[in-house]
Amino acid sequence: MKLSEIGEFALIDILANLVQKDRDVMSPGWKNLVAGIGDDAAAWKNSANLSLATTDCLVQDVHFRLGQTSWRDLGWKALAVNLSDIAAMGGTAEHALVTLGLPGETGVEDITELYKGMIEIGIASGVAIAGGDVTSSSAVFISLTVLGSAGDRILRRCAARGGELIAVTGYPGMAAAGMALINGKAKPDGETPALTQAFLRPSPRLGEGKIILEAGVQAAIDISDGLVADLGHLCRASGVSAQIETERVPLHPALRRAFPDRALDMALGGGEDYELLFTASAAAIEAVKARTSLPVSVIGEITTGNTGLVRVLDSHGNEYPLKKAGWDHFGTA
Amino acid sequence: MKLSEIGEFALIDILANLVQKDRDVMSPGWKNLVAGIGDDAAAWKNSANLSLATTDCLVQDVHFRLGQTSWRDLGWKALAVNLSDIAAMGGTAEHALVTLGLPGETGVEDITELYKGMIEIGIASGVAIAGGDVTSSSAVFISLTVLGSAGDRILRRCAARGGELIAVTGYPGMAAAGMALINGKAKPDGETPALTQAFLRPSPRLGEGKIILEAGVQAAIDISDGLVADLGHLCRASGVSAQIETERVPLHPALRRAFPDRALDMALGGGEDYELLFTASAAAIEAVKARTSLPVSVIGEITTGNTGLVRVLDSHGNEYPLKKAGWDHFGTA
Repeated sequence: MKLSEIGEFALIDILANLVQKDRDVMSPGWKNLVAGIGDDAAAWKNSANLSLATTDCLVQDVHFRLGQTSWRDLGWKALAVNLSDIAAMGGTAEHALVTLGLPGETGVEDITELYKGMIEIGIASGVAIAGGDVTSSSAVFISLTVLGSAGDRILRRCAARGGELIAVTGYPGMAAAGMALINGKAKPDGETPALTQAFLRPSPRLGEGKIILEAGVQAAIDISDGLVADLGHLCRASGVSAQIETERVPLHPALRRAFPDRALDMALGGGEDYELLFTASAAAIEAVKARTSLPVSVIGEITTGNTGLVRVLDSHGNEYPLKKAGWDHFGTA
Repeated sequence: MKLSEIGEFALIDILANLVQKDRDVMSPGWKNLVAGIGDDAAAWKNSANLSLATTDCLVQDVHFRLGQTSWRDLGWKALAVNLSDIAAMGGTAEHALVTLGLPGETGVEDITELYKGMIEIGIASGVAIAGGDVTSSSAVFISLTVLGSAGDRILRRCAARGGELIAVTGYPGMAAAGMALINGKAKPDGETPALTQAFLRPSPRLGEGKIILEAGVQAAIDISDGLVADLGHLCRASGVSAQIETERVPLHPALRRAFPDRALDMALGGGEDYELLFTASAAAIEAVKARTSLPVSVIGEITTGNTGLVRVLDSHGNEYPLKKAGWDHFGTA
């Protein structure tokens, strides 16, 4: 069944029922919801001091290709990338608004699968789908907004200070490796499910974001544009610079096995990782490590002067030549 | 200068500076903003009981055609249609997140004009642009989310009750007339600036939404899909039906002059009007009228049974044959 056969309002009914059926009434997002799908706007009761809002969009043939990802994974990922931004503030994610641009020939089952992927990660992270918009469009796009809350403090990009250590959760580069594999642009030397999974179903670090905030850390960012590129964003926002050492960048065994020669470049330059990078004292980093099962690795330190500059040094203390420094949407990076 | 020549991050810098330069620090949205453009998420301090969120998207060649609207008007309208949803809840609009999908050949000046249009209506309505996302895309799309707040009560679509009168603000049909003129699909018999303006630069009824709420009204909707279609939505959500009389539908003199034969059909079936429709007692409607300079017209009443049915009666009490009942994005309406 195609969208053009059932129409916009029947589609909205189907999606509203799906969302309603699987709602977790005990989750933060559902508990405070007053008006969800089906009114002019979503409404919920406030309790926290601070509100958070973020938006991120996936566009067909820019961020994904139909046929290379399932609709369910696409739904998961579209919400995951937004949750990652709330994680990078140390907040709690509560509500999502889902805007879909869809060609009329899109299958209704494809869109319900997309929603099931969103509902799945929504349940895992306490988020209620509270509204949205559907429109016709020549290419598929999925524009999500996630609303959240925080106590009286948040993690900021602009709060890094000279002398702080730079730490990163998990293993950067895995999503870039997974993307290269899925796009058929690389042949792995070893097995790859952990890599493709990292690309198709990223895990936003909501728990770690809170742990990092509670450890007294001030500055964090998620590394969705790539480790070095996002460290650069953080340095520019904070008016500082950074130095990282290639030997300290954690490389997942699956990444090293699949791409022994490119693993480090993927970790430094690949995008679409949703790990958190933060800057802190050694003691604060130890406090974070003590509370999470994820690896947390110190990879360098914040320096002063040369605002925005990120130096990458190899084991001999020489400048490491970066292959790719993040992603620019209009192709000038 | 094209986007592809300056890149994503330079564009974001330009837009962030524009937004910052024109901010109105006394407006609700700016006063409570803690983190705006340039961090992982936007953050602001809560004070109201209820949070509101709505999202609406304009797509090139679906909602607008470049060349038929200026970029500045497009920016105004993209924000206006979202503000209208907050108005329909009786809320205060505070923050906007702006997601743009843009081809690389788009002119940078066009996008700054788009932002100027948003900033213009943002200032007029107290809204701070607090974040967003830009991505490349084959066609232009503008997906906005507006966040707002309300006291302890909101206007709902689901709260209409049998016996209540149906009232509408302003003059429906003007935007449909303006659109027909701009698309070259109609030749007017009279002058038209009020009509094209209604289509290009709609005025969301934020003030009236609050007045309606404060008058004790429970149920409202904005008539962006068309008067009869949205009255149908309200009736379905409330489990009621409605009867309206064509003689009571207010027709603006400019609409009647330009389209003497089609004015009523445009008022009943045309979309893109951002007037508010609400249901209330005669006394509550009088209380609303006393506080606004806009015309407020009673056009019929809420009935029970036949959930969702809207009967339109002419001056002889006969069923009026509707030409067009709203807009469906996938073309089955």
